[in-house]
Amino acid sequence: MQAQRKYEEFLAEAAVINDLGKAAALLSWDQDTYMPEGGSQGRGHQMATLDSIRHARLTSARMADLLSALEAAELPADGVEAATVREARRAYERATRLPSRLVEELARQSSSARLAWVRAREADDFGLFEPELARMVELKREEADAVGFETERYDALLDEYEPGATVAEVRRIFGRLREEQVALLAEIGDSSVKLSDAPLLLGFPPAEQAAYVASLAAAVGYDFGRGRLDETIHPFAESMGLNDVRITTRYDHGNLATALFGTLHEVGHALYEQGIDPAFSRTPLAHAAGLGVHESQSRLWENLVGRSLAFWQGSYPKLQSAFEPRLRDVPLAAFHQAINVARPSLVRIEADEVSYNLHILVRFELETALLDGDLAVKDLPAAWNDRYRDYLGVVPTSDLQGCLQDIHWSVGLFGYFPTYALGNLMSVQLFEAAERHVGDLEGAIRAGDFAPLLSWLRKNVHRHGNRYSPAELLERATGARLDAGPYLDYLRAKFGGLYQLSPARTGA
Amino acid sequence: MQAQRKYEEFLAEAAVINDLGKAAALLSWDQDTYMPEGGSQGRGHQMATLDSIRHARLTSARMADLLSALEAAELPADGVEAATVREARRAYERATRLPSRLVEELARQSSSARLAWVRAREADDFGLFEPELARMVELKREEADAVGFETERYDALLDEYEPGATVAEVRRIFGRLREEQVALLAEIGDSSVKLSDAPLLLGFPPAEQAAYVASLAAAVGYDFGRGRLDETIHPFAESMGLNDVRITTRYDHGNLATALFGTLHEVGHALYEQGIDPAFSRTPLAHAAGLGVHESQSRLWENLVGRSLAFWQGSYPKLQSAFEPRLRDVPLAAFHQAINVARPSLVRIEADEVSYNLHILVRFELETALLDGDLAVKDLPAAWNDRYRDYLGVVPTSDLQGCLQDIHWSVGLFGYFPTYALGNLMSVQLFEAAERHVGDLEGAIRAGDFAPLLSWLRKNVHRHGNRYSPAELLERATGARLDAGPYLDYLRAKFGGLYQLSPARTGA
Repeated sequence: MQAQRKYEEFLAEAAVINDLGKAAALLSWDQDTYMPEGGSQGRGHQMATLDSIRHARLTSARMADLLSALEAAELPADGVEAATVREARRAYERATRLPSRLVEELARQSSSARLAWVRAREADDFGLFEPELARMVELKREEADAVGFETERYDALLDEYEPGATVAEVRRIFGRLREEQVALLAEIGDSSVKLSDAPLLLGFPPAEQAAYVASLAAAVGYDFGRGRLDETIHPFAESMGLNDVRITTRYDHGNLATALFGTLHEVGHALYEQGIDPAFSRTPLAHAAGLGVHESQSRLWENLVGRSLAFWQGSYPKLQSAFEPRLRDVPLAAFHQAINVARPSLVRIEADEVSYNLHILVRFELETALLDGDLAVKDLPAAWNDRYRDYLGVVPTSDLQGCLQDIHWSVGLFGYFPTYALGNLMSVQLFEAAERHVGDLEGAIRAGDFAPLLSWLRKNVHRHGNRYSPAELLERATGARLDAGPYLDYLRAKFGGLYQLSPARTGA
Repeated sequence: MQAQRKYEEFLAEAAVINDLGKAAALLSWDQDTYMPEGGSQGRGHQMATLDSIRHARLTSARMADLLSALEAAELPADGVEAATVREARRAYERATRLPSRLVEELARQSSSARLAWVRAREADDFGLFEPELARMVELKREEADAVGFETERYDALLDEYEPGATVAEVRRIFGRLREEQVALLAEIGDSSVKLSDAPLLLGFPPAEQAAYVASLAAAVGYDFGRGRLDETIHPFAESMGLNDVRITTRYDHGNLATALFGTLHEVGHALYEQGIDPAFSRTPLAHAAGLGVHESQSRLWENLVGRSLAFWQGSYPKLQSAFEPRLRDVPLAAFHQAINVARPSLVRIEADEVSYNLHILVRFELETALLDGDLAVKDLPAAWNDRYRDYLGVVPTSDLQGCLQDIHWSVGLFGYFPTYALGNLMSVQLFEAAERHVGDLEGAIRAGDFAPLLSWLRKNVHRHGNRYSPAELLERATGARLDAGPYLDYLRAKFGGLYQLSPARTGA
């Protein structure tokens, strides 16, 4: 009885903390969509205030007492209650271990390093960013030390985005990706087959794109009654609660792929959030298990579905009629090739499936080296360019297309990049598990019936929120641990076919 | 030194309270504009959480200590600091005097009475609303008793919306309005002149209306860099901070007046908020002096400017070309008449300038009678209809167009209605004071130059926020107290001309 009462008290406090986070999410969404320019200073104050109140509630003596009492009550280890307490404890520990001096300094440094990054980009001068990034690296080291770790400092940062993941495991997996994806990319480069993305570049009016991608989002299962689609320069998905999960996209008149795959990507994120068990609403379990799992959902819908032949076998006529007469004379096969052109590039966000992970590898290797002190910040541009030459065979002529391209490090996101690649791997593991369960999944997708896939994901991934760790979730859903094999096999099979690679090497 | 330190501590706490209120304002704005339907339950939780945290900060022991210390420090009585403390004290007293049991009951009753009001409207059955309204009246009595008052219970409620106003003063002023506006309306009815609003009913495409009213808002001085204009069923203005003041409007294809004057009305509210002294940002002075003053600004731009001949002498050609060819053959005089048709109607929000205050009088007389127990809720429909017959000469055939038309009472807004009429009176007093100062204000308006008027309002009204009480603000700006005379003279002159009323009676 006592434990039950405590648990209810704890849930009420957790709900308040959740509400503060969701209110802040709306402030952030609005800032990126509709806020007038004049609002930015006031919005900064409002977000800081909500954040500070949320932090205080999260780390209050009352929360500490409630957590201790509930842990002492020995709730059944495999139950929802224990998982809920575990997640609250996780948030509590992370929040309390950082001294407030460090939290404030990180916030200030994020602002100032971000600004320096913007200026460095404007001037194409890494030197303007260098001292700010160096200070940020120092602070991230301090943060990792404050959070604590067992063997490697980087683990403390990685764990924030992908709970339970370790740098040792990531290194092992990435080593294999490097070897095989570099080889595959080289084979594609050597192939006599050249694919063309010209069909995507015919000029597509944004209003028509908007209507089409909205219908596409609805078709695959995005619930507009519990979400909405807006336009922003940088697309994102944001949850204001399980029944209010919004996405944004971008329309590029000159390239249809931007909106098409950008929308499917954000829809994948949003389907995850919309699918979390309603019973977890306003509790610490009403979140994704980790950013890797989150990315697996966006990449699954973007690539495994959206760049597959089966999908367009069913959906291409509708796409053609949506943009009449542009695609009238483009055969399905040519369109499918256009959306799957694989070629080494300098910019991560424009990368194809074959090279995407290589962009991540570069960042992972460099950020761990920075953190360990094996790489000085001043040597970053050269180290970046070296790795692009080695892995992708291309070298930036400017840092704008090199180590100044991503905002992440400027705002302190170290340990975040790997989740993009982990998401790619999981997307294939999960898709293949769904295939085993559904049977003719390809046939359903070809028929425009996405319900079997979505239902399987809802049941095996989405609804669990962060009840399970990413590793446990993946194992429950697929029967396997994180594994590079399925993704590499998928790439080999798909691009081997598209580029007519020799089967001998493909099967190697 | 000690007082200075306390004052800074107080301002920091007031800023947090302000931020919480502004974050809640965004949640509310979003709820009425872009929130998907599914978000409503979660939004309710988020708003309740912010409200409860804000209330706790507003009424904390710390705030009490700070206020007492600052009051003991005897700040210069006419300074900004003293006014800031006074306003915080006012909010503190109001918030602490209501027992939390009553606050919660009022919140619950607002929800349930609002729902009953919606259902009663759907069924056109006042009986469904009656018991819920009766309970609301009881709770408002309790609220007034808890807040406290000197002579009349209603004063405690009125004071929330128009600080310092009293029912005695309102009764005196409204008595005069009743006498003269009823007579004027009757004279207009007897006049052989009949004006037609047909030019407004020619069918105006919403997209063209949207473009036109946006240009109109910008022309009179609304700053889109610190605001935005969206479409909602019920137009409103909402401040998310002094540099983020948003408005909404509604486009009726069949009637151009809806968007035209609805927009100018909300622009008037927004100009006030955009014009508050930036030094008051995030302090208790960063608000309007009262709802009457607020309404004076909306009505000033809507009516004194927007329904004047001078304004359209300058702006009519642009309006004509915005809606080509519809108004091509409508002369300016006919358009000016169309926007000034005066005829008794049943619905407040559609009322013209001559009858608007009479709608308010009915509500004021009935709500004071309900509160005093002189009128039973079950007798409300009959009392409503009687007064409409007496004052406006029209009788609702259904309560939908009678006592069920406004949402206010269902959500506990008693003491709010009078501010609409007080705002009308003040709008003329302020406009005429501006005229005395500017000189040829009409000429400037005719020339499309709104800067002289806006500058005067900025200097004499807007920038002060709620540093002064409404009465003090009005007296400083106009040299006079609240007075029905100027408004009645304005009506007589304007509508005497339009309806060719006999000068003898006009001058009476």
